[in-house]
This record gives sequence, structure tokens and C-alpha cells, in this order.
Amino acid sequence: MRVYGMAASGNCYKVQLVLAHLGREHAWIETDSTAGATRTPAFLALNPNGKVPLLERDDGRVLAESNAILCYLADGSPLLPADAWQRALALQWMFFEQYSHEPYVAVARFIRRWLPADHARHADLPRLIERGTQALDVMEGHLAQHAFFAGEAYSVADIALFAYTHVAAEGGFDLVRYPAITAWFDRVRTQPGFVPMQA
Amino acid sequence: MRVYGMAASGNCYKVQLVLAHLGREHAWIETDSTAGATRTPAFLALNPNGKVPLLERDDGRVLAESNAILCYLADGSPLLPADAWQRALALQWMFFEQYSHEPYVAVARFIRRWLPADHARHADLPRLIERGTQALDVMEGHLAQHAFFAGEAYSVADIALFAYTHVAAEGGFDLVRYPAITAWFDRVRTQPGFVPMQA
Repeated sequence: MRVYGMAASGNCYKVQLVLAHLGREHAWIETDSTAGATRTPAFLALNPNGKVPLLERDDGRVLAESNAILCYLADGSPLLPADAWQRALALQWMFFEQYSHEPYVAVARFIRRWLPADHARHADLPRLIERGTQALDVMEGHLAQHAFFAGEAYSVADIALFAYTHVAAEGGFDLVRYPAITAWFDRVRTQPGFVPMQA
Repeated sequence: MRVYGMAASGNCYKVQLVLAHLGREHAWIETDSTAGATRTPAFLALNPNGKVPLLERDDGRVLAESNAILCYLADGSPLLPADAWQRALALQWMFFEQYSHEPYVAVARFIRRWLPADHARHADLPRLIERGTQALDVMEGHLAQHAFFAGEAYSVADIALFAYTHVAAEGGFDLVRYPAITAWFDRVRTQPGFVPMQA
């Protein structure tokens, strides 16, 4: 299988992390969305929504959306809970990640790391920090009482939330305020097969 | 089971629609997020992220995030594909809906329908229309070749995308440009157990 992705993207790192945990062979095709590589006619023919990561199976079928890729690859492994309620909770946290977390925590990092200091989008940062802080507060509240997000075992929900949270400082978030989150970082990093982000 | 929701919200309508298709009894607790009802201490104790819809089981367990609720309720029914690849495609479209569609198509409708005409957020509308149009274009391209979103059968992915797309005109989107989407509306409306949005 082939994975189109940009190594410095948290959404793409999620796929690297689940593949490493599962020990699955794959070809990585570095695809720099900041340089327009996801907007070429060839890439848009694969994913009309023009985003990475994108999974391409050996039979040519393609799957987009990082969290859908996580669920597909982890299906049948302990990383996707077999219990219906635990699986529902994993999905709850993955939709939380894409709707209430990534658009603030990841976008603040993108602006600070990739855009020039005089770019107009720096004006968005106060609102992004406010909303991202709300998401981190929700995570902290959960992790103060639970070891992981879906029940008490490491799952795709942890992978989805770890990806951008562990680099949130690059977006201007102060993680010292979040002892339960930083303790959870350590639990994630000691999972068998863990690989760090290449960014 | 109890569902906390606001009838005029597309995210909440998704849950009404899947419950109607499945013929599941439930109590609906109207919860007006535009009047602060999702930010009370009592509601935040149920869902610290302060959003509806929220599912509360008879045993008191709660589940947030509309698309996670859809998957949980539809699990074991034809609305959630049993085939792993079809299920992955359903999830792909549901994450697309929450990340690339709802923040534009639903938010444009919210601004035009609920905020006063002189509210500062009306300035966001051109960008929301541009991004929402990109999402509708992706949907149109898919529906020009497929009857439904995950394979060839009606599923939770169609429910998730129908909710805000069928009222996109309220946000200022011109649906006449999308013949494949409007033909799909008709296929959705003729599914057994379909109920219209109460808004």
C-alpha cells in the first residue's frame, strides 16, 4: 500500500504512527501541501478534496481523511475497540479532534511555523488560541480521570489526539498548564511500536 | 434513551433521522444552543464540550458528536455497512462532512438565519461560500457517478451529508448548479422512515 503524506503534518503523522504500531509495510510518498502538491491535476484525480494523508491500496482503491484511515487500518486490532460502546467513544473523540481541536491547535501551529511573520493570518491567532485552549481543557478534564480516551486502553482516539497536541507549543499553547495531558504524552510514547514525528 | 438537541440544527436532525429510520423510541429534550442552553453547569456536566446533539442512555452513559452517535445507533443495521471497506468510505465522508463541509455550509446558514443583519460575522460569508462551494463540488463529482456516498446503498454517510446540504440555500448556496446533489436529495427523501427536518 502507498501513503501520500507530508511528514510535518500531524494528520499524516497519525497514519505513520498506526502503521508503525501495526508493523505494516508501506511506501511513503512525501507530498508537500504547502508547496501545492495536493492541488495538482494528478493528485486531485486521486483525491478531489485535495488533501493528505491519502491511502492507496494495491488494487488502486483510495481512502482519504486521516481518522477514517486510522479506523480502517486498525480494524480487527486492539487499537480499534471491539466493544460497541468503546468504539463509539473512540469515534466521539476522533470527531472532537477534527471539529473542536485540529482547526485551532493545528492551524495556530501552521500559521506560526509556515507563514511569514507579516502574514495577515497572524491576526487569527488570539481566536485560535482561545478555542484551542477550550479543547485542551476538555482533554485535561477527561485525562484527569482516565488513562486513555476510549476506555482504559490505548486506541486510535489517542493516536488522533496525540498528533497535534504534542506539538501544540509550536502553535503558542502553554502545555505546562496541563499536567494530565503531559502525563498522557508519556503513556503514549511508551506504547509498543511508537515512533516520533519526523518534523 | 434521551437525546438533547436543537430541532433546527442539522447536526441534531441527523440523530432524529437515524432514529426514525431505525424506529427507535427516545425522549427528545429540546436544548437551544443559540440561547445558551448548552453552556449551563448542568449541561456541561453531561458534555464538557458544550454541544448538542448528546445521547444519554438509560444507564446514564453519554455520547457526544453527531456522527459518532449515528455510527453507534446504526451499528448492526444496514445503515452502517458491514463490509470493512464500505464502512471506511462511510467514515471518510463523515469526517469530510465535519471538516470540509459543516464549518462552511452550516456556519453560513447560521450567520444568515440567526445573527442580526448588522453582525460583524456577515463579513465571513464570502469565504464561507467559497469553501462551502468547494465541498459541494466534491459531493457533486461523487454523486455524478454513484447513487449514494458509501458504495451503492443508503448509509449514515448520506444522513450526515443530507442534514446541512438540503438546507444549504438558507446559507446562500445556489443548489441549482448541482443536479446530481438535488437528484440524491430525492433518493434520500424516499428512504423508508424518512422524516423532514422540523425547522
